[in-house]
Amino acid sequence: MAHYERLTFLTDYGLEDGFVASCHGVAARFAPQARVIDITHLVPPGDVRRGAAVLAQTLPFLPPSVHVAVVDPGVGTARRGIAVQAGEGIFVGPDNGLLSWAIQAAGGAVRAFSLTNSELWLHPVSATFHGRDVFMPVAARLVTGTDLESVGTSLPPGELVTLPVPTSRVRDGNVEGEVMSVDRFGNVQLSIASSDLGMLGAEPGGALVVRCGQHRLTVPYLETFAAVAPGELVAYTDSAGLVSLAVNAGDAAQRLGLPPGAHVRLAVAP
Amino acid sequence: MAHYERLTFLTDYGLEDGFVASCHGVAARFAPQARVIDITHLVPPGDVRRGAAVLAQTLPFLPPSVHVAVVDPGVGTARRGIAVQAGEGIFVGPDNGLLSWAIQAAGGAVRAFSLTNSELWLHPVSATFHGRDVFMPVAARLVTGTDLESVGTSLPPGELVTLPVPTSRVRDGNVEGEVMSVDRFGNVQLSIASSDLGMLGAEPGGALVVRCGQHRLTVPYLETFAAVAPGELVAYTDSAGLVSLAVNAGDAAQRLGLPPGAHVRLAVAP
Amino acid sequence: MAHYERLTFLTDYGLEDGFVASCHGVAARFAPQARVIDITHLVPPGDVRRGAAVLAQTLPFLPPSVHVAVVDPGVGTARRGIAVQAGEGIFVGPDNGLLSWAIQAAGGAVRAFSLTNSELWLHPVSATFHGRDVFMPVAARLVTGTDLESVGTSLPPGELVTLPVPTSRVRDGNVEGEVMSVDRFGNVQLSIASSDLGMLGAEPGGALVVRCGQHRLTVPYLETFAAVAPGELVAYTDSAGLVSLAVNAGDAAQRLGLPPGAHVRLAVAP
Repeated sequence: MAHYERLTFLTDYGLEDGFVASCHGVAARFAPQARVIDITHLVPPGDVRRGAAVLAQTLPFLPPSVHVAVVDPGVGTARRGIAVQAGEGIFVGPDNGLLSWAIQAAGGAVRAFSLTNSELWLHPVSATFHGRDVFMPVAARLVTGTDLESVGTSLPPGELVTLPVPTSRVRDGNVEGEVMSVDRFGNVQLSIASSDLGMLGAEPGGALVVRCGQHRLTVPYLETFAAVAPGELVAYTDSAGLVSLAVNAGDAAQRLGLPPGAHVRLAVAP
Repeated sequence: MAHYERLTFLTDYGLEDGFVASCHGVAARFAPQARVIDITHLVPPGDVRRGAAVLAQTLPFLPPSVHVAVVDPGVGTARRGIAVQAGEGIFVGPDNGLLSWAIQAAGGAVRAFSLTNSELWLHPVSATFHGRDVFMPVAARLVTGTDLESVGTSLPPGELVTLPVPTSRVRDGNVEGEVMSVDRFGNVQLSIASSDLGMLGAEPGGALVVRCGQHRLTVPYLETFAAVAPGELVAYTDSAGLVSLAVNAGDAAQRLGLPPGAHVRLAVAP
Repeated sequence: MAHYERLTFLTDYGLEDGFVASCHGVAARFAPQARVIDITHLVPPGDVRRGAAVLAQTLPFLPPSVHVAVVDPGVGTARRGIAVQAGEGIFVGPDNGLLSWAIQAAGGAVRAFSLTNSELWLHPVSATFHGRDVFMPVAARLVTGTDLESVGTSLPPGELVTLPVPTSRVRDGNVEGEVMSVDRFGNVQLSIASSDLGMLGAEPGGALVVRCGQHRLTVPYLETFAAVAPGELVAYTDSAGLVSLAVNAGDAAQRLGLPPGAHVRLAVAP
């Protein structure tokens, strides 16, 4: 097992309590030399899908790390804790699909283990704070060189819980997809790769017909949101390679009434 | 005096201004090797009691550190600045009770000093930002090995300002307490240790009668909030060992109308 | 070129997405030993002026660093990326005025370069996330000793975009200025140095006449907001040396209806 010097950390714990700091403290106790990159702790409470999307999209830019992610509405129930080796990293968290998109983005699970070795945990183990008592202690030990095999019993990777991958389908001259996420700026990220748009013959500099809910809009398809006047709608390829809708200096999600999961259809404007 | 490699930092400074970063910068200037664990900077402005609770509950999971805490509505007035040795740490901040619960949790003050040695401060000292100009400079010097005695004049620990400890009283088959805090998830933490409930004969798997304000509710007492159906109320022992009320996948504080300080009475359900 | 061990980082990226972490990850990949001080990531989206103010006011307390700042509503358009040496630091970001107040506070630009050397960037370069793909990779390389000259073509410092400096004018026994910023506590920072008030003969312990919008108020001018009773208005010199208005334990910006940019006139109370 390689030696990792980095931990990354994603949760829905928020920043107003001491939850994140307790985990940082545990990391500092078990792995004094490790550095922690906080991905975000503002995943909406219990929103596993949102956590999975942020983790998977941030992953390509992180150094080789042990990645700890905890959005865990089932904490304290029978759901497993897992540690999964994939790509350059190890992923530690609940087996509820949170890690699945990142593991896929890293090239798929090489080895997977159920966290059954309680000797690596912090005792007494609380029923509701496994981030502090189970996941971070295990991750911190992995960072300092503990063998992955020692965390518990081996699992066939095929038994890991996975989230359904957001659909993106090209047919009849349309690409259909859904809203992956809405960022701080109100930009609406779709589950449609710009390469799928390319299959329809769409190219930056042209225009798209966007159908969503009651809306049917013709929108310029350009390199960046800043290419249109303030207040104007635009489609562009975002920094994750996905087609996104924005209002320059405005909030597209609000303008279009598009929450995560909403269905969207794109076509080349005639 | 032992050599500490860690600072921890808790304030009500918020994250939208440069206040926290100014203090991090001062720490980096005076103690370039020290690492800082941010506990939280989102204590509601001036809420000394909330700051005290978060600090005391996070403390057991932090490594040996110099702990800087600043919730300081009396900054620039006659209130003292203090540095207090307790347990494995040194606590630095205003003498307004903010540090008192953590000092108690660490085993009580061993030595206490009033921050009167202005040679250790950053000059010119502002009247309103002692976190940057007094507390962090002193803490950063302590981290690098400066003697605790050098920070100022010795204080009898008994003269330190303390916050009243939230009451918890067992009588007539009830436990009475108050709301300690409400976390990001809306979980309501009571000032009642699960061991006090045990004195009444309550055990996880049973049920409690909860009286608060106009409410009189019978609530299951289980291992974790995830043990009830979404939307259901539950009592459980939280990760700090205190009895808490939650709504699975919901907000108990909102449901019950329970702010910090509200009185609550628990009994074993018949 | 000196070797800097520190990066600082200010953006309007928010904390709920993975944008900041992607940049931290890039920094960790290119400059594994560097430490990052996050100044703030909660600049209101696209508010270049606010970002400039926070950066300039935090700067004096930061260690020698490469400072990365990204509030960049024009990302992907023809606006330049720049790296500017000033004082003990190097400033990296968009050439839209964001860096200008900090560069001025550091003593003015010594050397300036346009970021035209794409060999230092992360590829493929997205059109909308230059913080991750251009600014942080360049900054991380500078931190590890890359020559400043190598980032691109030299620029005359006089060609850098600058924000207009907020006005402060003494005339007819008044000082006129504007609201620089409103902090978390609702304290209203004016663009008026306390030394300008001194020119009128105002001294702490006296009182000021404050004119703003429809208001004409007489306000005590004291050392700190805590010197008045809770709920009372007060003027004082803040931790940046600027005259500020506060309500002790309250929100002065809300009370007075004073947003950033609003005009305010001060005089010594008769």
